[in-house]
Amino acid sequence: MVLSHLERNYDRCLAQLKEFIAFPSISTSPEHGDEMKRTAQWLADHLTAMGLAGRVMQTARHPVVYGEWAGAVGKPTLLIYGHYDVQPPEPLELWESPAFELTERDGYFFARGISDDKGQLFIHLKAIEAYLETEGRLPVNVKLILEGEEEIGSPSLPAFLAANRRLLAADVAVISDNPMLGVGMPAVGYGLRGLAYAEVLLDGPNGDLHSGRFGGAVANPANALCKMLGSLKDEHNRIAIPGFYDSVRPLAPEERETIKNLPIGEKFYREATGVDALAPEEGYAAIECIWARPSMDINGLTSGFQGEGAKTVLPAKARAKLSFRLVPDQEPEAVLDALEAHLKHILPPGIKMTFIRHEGAHPAMVDRSDPMLETARRALEAGFGKPCWLIRQGGTIPVVSLMKKVLDLNTLLLGFGLPDENAHAPNERLLVENFRGGMRSIVELYRMLGGM
Amino acid sequence: MVLSHLERNYDRCLAQLKEFIAFPSISTSPEHGDEMKRTAQWLADHLTAMGLAGRVMQTARHPVVYGEWAGAVGKPTLLIYGHYDVQPPEPLELWESPAFELTERDGYFFARGISDDKGQLFIHLKAIEAYLETEGRLPVNVKLILEGEEEIGSPSLPAFLAANRRLLAADVAVISDNPMLGVGMPAVGYGLRGLAYAEVLLDGPNGDLHSGRFGGAVANPANALCKMLGSLKDEHNRIAIPGFYDSVRPLAPEERETIKNLPIGEKFYREATGVDALAPEEGYAAIECIWARPSMDINGLTSGFQGEGAKTVLPAKARAKLSFRLVPDQEPEAVLDALEAHLKHILPPGIKMTFIRHEGAHPAMVDRSDPMLETARRALEAGFGKPCWLIRQGGTIPVVSLMKKVLDLNTLLLGFGLPDENAHAPNERLLVENFRGGMRSIVELYRMLGGM
Repeated sequence: MVLSHLERNYDRCLAQLKEFIAFPSISTSPEHGDEMKRTAQWLADHLTAMGLAGRVMQTARHPVVYGEWAGAVGKPTLLIYGHYDVQPPEPLELWESPAFELTERDGYFFARGISDDKGQLFIHLKAIEAYLETEGRLPVNVKLILEGEEEIGSPSLPAFLAANRRLLAADVAVISDNPMLGVGMPAVGYGLRGLAYAEVLLDGPNGDLHSGRFGGAVANPANALCKMLGSLKDEHNRIAIPGFYDSVRPLAPEERETIKNLPIGEKFYREATGVDALAPEEGYAAIECIWARPSMDINGLTSGFQGEGAKTVLPAKARAKLSFRLVPDQEPEAVLDALEAHLKHILPPGIKMTFIRHEGAHPAMVDRSDPMLETARRALEAGFGKPCWLIRQGGTIPVVSLMKKVLDLNTLLLGFGLPDENAHAPNERLLVENFRGGMRSIVELYRMLGGM
Repeated sequence: MVLSHLERNYDRCLAQLKEFIAFPSISTSPEHGDEMKRTAQWLADHLTAMGLAGRVMQTARHPVVYGEWAGAVGKPTLLIYGHYDVQPPEPLELWESPAFELTERDGYFFARGISDDKGQLFIHLKAIEAYLETEGRLPVNVKLILEGEEEIGSPSLPAFLAANRRLLAADVAVISDNPMLGVGMPAVGYGLRGLAYAEVLLDGPNGDLHSGRFGGAVANPANALCKMLGSLKDEHNRIAIPGFYDSVRPLAPEERETIKNLPIGEKFYREATGVDALAPEEGYAAIECIWARPSMDINGLTSGFQGEGAKTVLPAKARAKLSFRLVPDQEPEAVLDALEAHLKHILPPGIKMTFIRHEGAHPAMVDRSDPMLETARRALEAGFGKPCWLIRQGGTIPVVSLMKKVLDLNTLLLGFGLPDENAHAPNERLLVENFRGGMRSIVELYRMLGGM
């Protein structure tokens, strides 16, 4: 009855989603401050109309929208997290349909935020609404926090969670802000990588030099940068910073077994990226490296002359941005400490280094013994009519470790996106079938958790 | 009498130099084509007025100005080379006086081209003029080729020299387009380094990737670039390309002895560049590395995200410009062949390389047994009243090897600039005392060569 209600009201659902998507809720852009407020108010009003007593809660920057339904006495309480802010839509000329106009084409919805995360959070709202409009109640209690700062690193969220511990008390967190394994392959996530991010600035001579007049006698910061960073990974694709792997939790044998049996493998990754060969750490499959092994990527390099043609300059400066994806039990600050100490150790004479730390994030690992994980897996199987996988993911969702740290909650990571959904790019999309399968799955999840 | 004529006519000389400097003869800039023509015509007229039968000789792009005086029967003929084109003056806001307005300040002339090379070639014109106006004749024969394409790599010069072999027949070439050893340290050059220049473009995935979703499994072109280029020099500051040193001519024992006795050393280079330590090849003094050992400098690095802040991108591309200063008997093409082969050899899986070659130049070594070198040394000692050194230099003046190859001429490298004269930068300058000492030296040179 709840599921058929979803079907019957699908057109109304799309009309509402279209309205929600139309707000240009771009959190990074100061001139969109009023739009952010309007979006939050619309969302709070929507929650209220659904029966969730929506309210807008101020933070230092963009508000959190809160709503709850607490009538299932003795049943689990779910803390559902989502975010209503989106990435800027630029470059606009690459969009095939307007960024803030929900458009259906080739089986996909297209719009900024449709996957990340307005469309995915809407799945939860409509599942809740279907219960309330048919049965007048939910099988579980729900609390929703829908933030407006995810795309700018959630600066207000830690303080918000800490200040509202009692309000947010729950049994488990639920987040849909990530991809499934692939089309027709629903998945429940139990692990995410963390992040450590640094900038390395090398200074040599006090100005650019003529390479003829000084080359060979004066240390070149661009040479030094390549030599230093080039030495950070060895010929086995292992990171060569002393102690780097000390706190890396090994893959459990059953995880490696699961990975072997996955319906996607090296071919999938080669085709998705267009490379003729992958470059995993020796001894590990590509997907093991993405899920459960730390990685190091230089994200940017800048030095000297970058225009057309030749210029024989010995540059005064060179800089790199580099980051590490971390796995349990690595700590971002400890990794940056080790990196900085190692770089200082290998810094050549005649070069000075400035080491800049950017915001990092802890890796997250959900307790797999929590029976709710298996319940969620079964709920997604029911919702999609396909086998559902328990997976780790290579990306970072800082709120997952925050939920654990501040509220002591495990998280059910129920992503309904796809790996190639253009989350931060033009033509962001969400497979229509995943949107519908997601709503069915959440309906099943509430029912199953309510019966536990 | 010739020397005192120079003194008496110094004001007239400066007024003429001011006129010459005022032409914005920027060869790189297509919109300055007419200015280039006007400069060449002014120069040809000036030669004619001096009695050198100036003429403008067309090339594929900017003309060569030619002049000669051939009345010293039985005496040596000097082929004097200079260039009237200059570098663009930008950034203009950094100039303390207008770029094309000859200004004297703190003992220096300031203007674009004053050192490189309009001011230096003018030294020759005024020395010749002083002879012709006082004695009605020169002690030697002179032929002048003043080109307009030096700052764009002299593309027309090889063909021009080859097409005019008979016209340009001479006993020695004379070039003043380089620095002295230091203030009060005149020098005659006998060696220059050559140049090999390449660009390395690495391509990985077919677009920028999310480092969380792919990092650790897909080869990162920025990582690969650092690893590959970082391995090209070893811990002894030696270039680690197989065979790289095979054709490097060792420093002669007397050269090393001369270097030991030079009035400049490591302290000079540290202070000139502001570094706390130099980084010469192991076993060699800094100045030996600059003069007579090959060097490798990365001239530019570009990859991924170069803006403010952090972006966790796994870039699709990375590129570098890198160049080698070469010494006798290295060949630019052979060095690039070895580099390309080595880079292909160490190219990691999942990365494609494009290797681009830019224009190079052969190293040059003047025959030190030519007695004219010693004559030139004594002429500069007389002109400056200071000891004059026989030196090699780290830079590249491609015309020196062209003179040898096409016209079979040794070159007298008589630079009157200084190492810190901002040749291609704002506030280009020339020490007034070097301009005057240069004119006296050239007067002495003609007299001494005429008496040989």
